[in-house]
Amino acid sequence: MPKFFVGRESIDGDRALITGDDAGHIVRVLRKSPGDEIILCDGEGRDYHCRVLSIDGGVLCEITGSFESSSEPDVDVGVFLAFTKGERLELAIQKCVELGAAALYPFPSARCVARYGPAELVKKAERWQRIADEASKQSMRARPPAVRPLSSFEDMLEGALKYSRRVILYEMEKDMPLREAIGGDFGSIALITGPEGGFEEKEIEAARKAAITPVTIGKRILRAETAPICALAAVMYQTGNLGG
Amino acid sequence: MPKFFVGRESIDGDRALITGDDAGHIVRVLRKSPGDEIILCDGEGRDYHCRVLSIDGGVLCEITGSFESSSEPDVDVGVFLAFTKGERLELAIQKCVELGAAALYPFPSARCVARYGPAELVKKAERWQRIADEASKQSMRARPPAVRPLSSFEDMLEGALKYSRRVILYEMEKDMPLREAIGGDFGSIALITGPEGGFEEKEIEAARKAAITPVTIGKRILRAETAPICALAAVMYQTGNLGG
Repeated sequence: MPKFFVGRESIDGDRALITGDDAGHIVRVLRKSPGDEIILCDGEGRDYHCRVLSIDGGVLCEITGSFESSSEPDVDVGVFLAFTKGERLELAIQKCVELGAAALYPFPSARCVARYGPAELVKKAERWQRIADEASKQSMRARPPAVRPLSSFEDMLEGALKYSRRVILYEMEKDMPLREAIGGDFGSIALITGPEGGFEEKEIEAARKAAITPVTIGKRILRAETAPICALAAVMYQTGNLGG
Repeated sequence: MPKFFVGRESIDGDRALITGDDAGHIVRVLRKSPGDEIILCDGEGRDYHCRVLSIDGGVLCEITGSFESSSEPDVDVGVFLAFTKGERLELAIQKCVELGAAALYPFPSARCVARYGPAELVKKAERWQRIADEASKQSMRARPPAVRPLSSFEDMLEGALKYSRRVILYEMEKDMPLREAIGGDFGSIALITGPEGGFEEKEIEAARKAAITPVTIGKRILRAETAPICALAAVMYQTGNLGG
């Protein structure tokens, strides 16, 4: 049954009224007509099973049942993303939210080209959170993950500590594949990825001392924004949360 | 050792001279200086192990050895992408090339919003191939994968036949997870993904008749451009080609 996001304001008692572009999508793209069933999702943790009543002047539905959303993964992944140039970080945030990241932590590292003063970082944080909120709704997440920028590499090391497993993607690492580092059971994992120029060796040494495992994700060189998406897809696949 | 793409014209006998932005990146971002070692990759299948000789007026290197590139995955994945709105398809092509797709086949399906006449498709094909070439170089692929647009859904079904395993991502599929469909050994796989509105039921029926397996990649709804990237990451992870 097609699942479709609507704002909470579209739902009133046992009725839902969807207007505008959303209604157009349901009628013209999904080709729904009276009698058809759809699931509406309010982006705040609930799914509504509905039957379409009419499609004139918006799509009017009868709500036949409402349920706690089951779309959240059963693994708690925190993705720590080194600052990359504007659009790249935004793309990584959007895709990581779609894939089910529980929290996102942008942070500065030595080779970051993008650098932000405190005031600028506050503004950026708002923008990143909006992107996460939007992606969360679009992908029917039960609730949007928080984006929490960190102001130093050391804060990143400390923030990662609250995750039971911790890996840092490092292109110079040859011996420890991601698969080996994420085998077995774990409840939570910190996934740490670098900027365009990669991490410096001394950063990796500091990570090692903080009990974070440097890992490789293979022989091809992935762009800074592609690496976290792929590593997260691998973690979700490994834990049965991506077609598993 | 950092691996770095350069055009073939930078290489002359046992010397390589890198100028412009690339030289700036090596000196200022990677902080290489005379005596340091780097690997240059020509995007045509060869890697060159080099020692930096000087960094004035471009980075001059001595080539100490050259090797057949080992960056290609050992699985042949053809990614069949339904037309999606401009930027989305371009992003999917870029990321699938980074991840190691062997060939990309954009194709039309019933709910595609994006539609192209024959002349427009030829122009689009050129643009998509340029994007693939660029991504191939950036990710140090041995050689760029071909982008071959198909003009009908039926051509897609036929094109998929040359792959030994064939899956189509379908959001209504609940019983067959991607993991089950891609378990065991296989030499080649066709990965087929839909447009923004998903596939129609009759398209899935036609795919089934063509011995293509409908699969689910989980409970979250991925955008049209995110699904192929994540499914390909899963295939690469499964086959030991992504940190495996």
